[in-house]
Amino acid sequence: MTQKDFWRNSKVTVIGAGSWGSCLAAMAARNCQQVRLWTRSEEHARQMNATRANAKYVPELVFNERVQATSDIEKALGHGEGGVHAVVWALPSGVVRENARRMAGLLRGDEIIFHAIKGIEEGTMKRVSEILREELPCPRIGVLSGPNLAHEIGRGEPGATVIASAFEEVIDAGHALFTTDRFRIYSTDDVIGVEWAGTLKNILAIASGTLDAMKFGWNTRSMLITRGLAEMVRFGVAMGARESTFLGLAGIGDLMATCSSSLSRNYRVGIRLAEGQKLAQILSELGSTAEGVRTARHVYEFARTHRIEMPITEGVYHLIEGEAPVQEILHSLMTRTSAD
Amino acid sequence: MTQKDFWRNSKVTVIGAGSWGSCLAAMAARNCQQVRLWTRSEEHARQMNATRANAKYVPELVFNERVQATSDIEKALGHGEGGVHAVVWALPSGVVRENARRMAGLLRGDEIIFHAIKGIEEGTMKRVSEILREELPCPRIGVLSGPNLAHEIGRGEPGATVIASAFEEVIDAGHALFTTDRFRIYSTDDVIGVEWAGTLKNILAIASGTLDAMKFGWNTRSMLITRGLAEMVRFGVAMGARESTFLGLAGIGDLMATCSSSLSRNYRVGIRLAEGQKLAQILSELGSTAEGVRTARHVYEFARTHRIEMPITEGVYHLIEGEAPVQEILHSLMTRTSAD
Repeated sequence: MTQKDFWRNSKVTVIGAGSWGSCLAAMAARNCQQVRLWTRSEEHARQMNATRANAKYVPELVFNERVQATSDIEKALGHGEGGVHAVVWALPSGVVRENARRMAGLLRGDEIIFHAIKGIEEGTMKRVSEILREELPCPRIGVLSGPNLAHEIGRGEPGATVIASAFEEVIDAGHALFTTDRFRIYSTDDVIGVEWAGTLKNILAIASGTLDAMKFGWNTRSMLITRGLAEMVRFGVAMGARESTFLGLAGIGDLMATCSSSLSRNYRVGIRLAEGQKLAQILSELGSTAEGVRTARHVYEFARTHRIEMPITEGVYHLIEGEAPVQEILHSLMTRTSAD
Repeated sequence: MTQKDFWRNSKVTVIGAGSWGSCLAAMAARNCQQVRLWTRSEEHARQMNATRANAKYVPELVFNERVQATSDIEKALGHGEGGVHAVVWALPSGVVRENARRMAGLLRGDEIIFHAIKGIEEGTMKRVSEILREELPCPRIGVLSGPNLAHEIGRGEPGATVIASAFEEVIDAGHALFTTDRFRIYSTDDVIGVEWAGTLKNILAIASGTLDAMKFGWNTRSMLITRGLAEMVRFGVAMGARESTFLGLAGIGDLMATCSSSLSRNYRVGIRLAEGQKLAQILSELGSTAEGVRTARHVYEFARTHRIEMPITEGVYHLIEGEAPVQEILHSLMTRTSAD
């Protein structure tokens, strides 16, 4: 039996029915026998099962008959039915540890674990695969990351992503489960690089929003993204990542898509900061935190302590803290003497 | 006397008064004593001197009093007045050799030479710095390349570029002449990488235009640009370039700007090819050739002969040659089994 045959008969659970979790559930359901999609809201699960869609987060998407939504975590993980073969985590980074801790007892340990979560843990600066490794009994973990705008993937536009893992079985499973005729999988063993790339890009999404507010075009945006990428590489390499990872889909690919889409929360924070609004007011109006704000603070402090040159991150930090208007930060970035 | 002081008193000639040559003339004129801007049209020179602007190519730009346009090449190069200190080439790649040959006798040999020309020579596949080295008596040559959309730079939007040269003096001169409070210069000695990056991106500009015609969003575009970058790296490294150059402004920076601006000729060729028009008709309507068409043919042939994996370039080639409709090419790109 080939890997592909094995996974064709497998059962998969997706934890989190946001826009991207739902896309991954829909893609896996084309390649395996059964997908359980867990959401904490019973009403949301009921709606998704009734309509074969997720009208709330990604209305473009259609679920085939092999996707079943549920708010019952035991049922989602096949407890009492022999369990499942793979679990895909797609929750906000802030709630990963508490959920992993809660679900750990329902796993056997031989499940393949994927996560598609961008961000680091508040306080510890731990990556999501580190959190999962600490809380779950499953050693075989991989991360899935790339330029994946859920609404566009949901509409069936062509796309691709990267799966990173130290385990060949995880990469093989990722190829088997998520490849479609419109979605390609690339792979690497640089887990650190892929996870940090997905986290750091949110800082630059804020910066990109500020350019939008200033009405600048692609010349300035390309400069920001390219020089921002150089900062991401410096930071990532200091954390143990490989430079070449940032050249790929999980690096520059995701960065470019994020910095070009005005839909992201981080991007909208950037627009409003550039317009002179205060952070507290922006965040209260957006109704939740923006990952990039938290990341910018953590990374700025770390980079300063460890002397990693990150002038754009520093500028975003000063903007977030309300220490200078955006024009002044931009001027000082453009006229500094450092070659970085 | 510092380098900066030396260049502050220098004379510079820009050969070619297109949009980018004019921007470079305007920037240099803020940092040196005199800029002569050569155009082959006497009428165009007269207009630019009368209006302090180049209404034809980059109306956003204002020339200060140190810019003087002329169609007299002897005057442009300061013949009989002691000559000039630097010459900036900004002509279409197809006419570089004939013009260099014609002007060689007017140069002493100690001038610093820059060029800001993207493309390779028909037939020989020689880079522009190689052509200039063969035709001019001046060994000290550098190339200037980056995400530089002339209209945006002309409006004063912030930007940056890369100067590549084996000679420190060329890089120092580039910093002194082109740095402004809105324009930053980065440098490298990887001339091969910078020149090939600026050439290869035109193939992907055609591909990017096809996505536009198919109404795809940033997800698909990011995939194209990132995987296209991987092809550029493979080809560039085979030609002697360094991978890291493609990570910078002259690589991914320029590629991103070019693939996002619907103004480029290559991009518009891509749109029309995807709509099913024939190349001959497109080129005759555009009124001139598109660099990317020529480049795609050369690079496709070279990559095939030397077994360099370039699936997107191959797809663009088939599209140009009218061998398959764009949907079929896209489908075969998305479903191929190779990991590249």
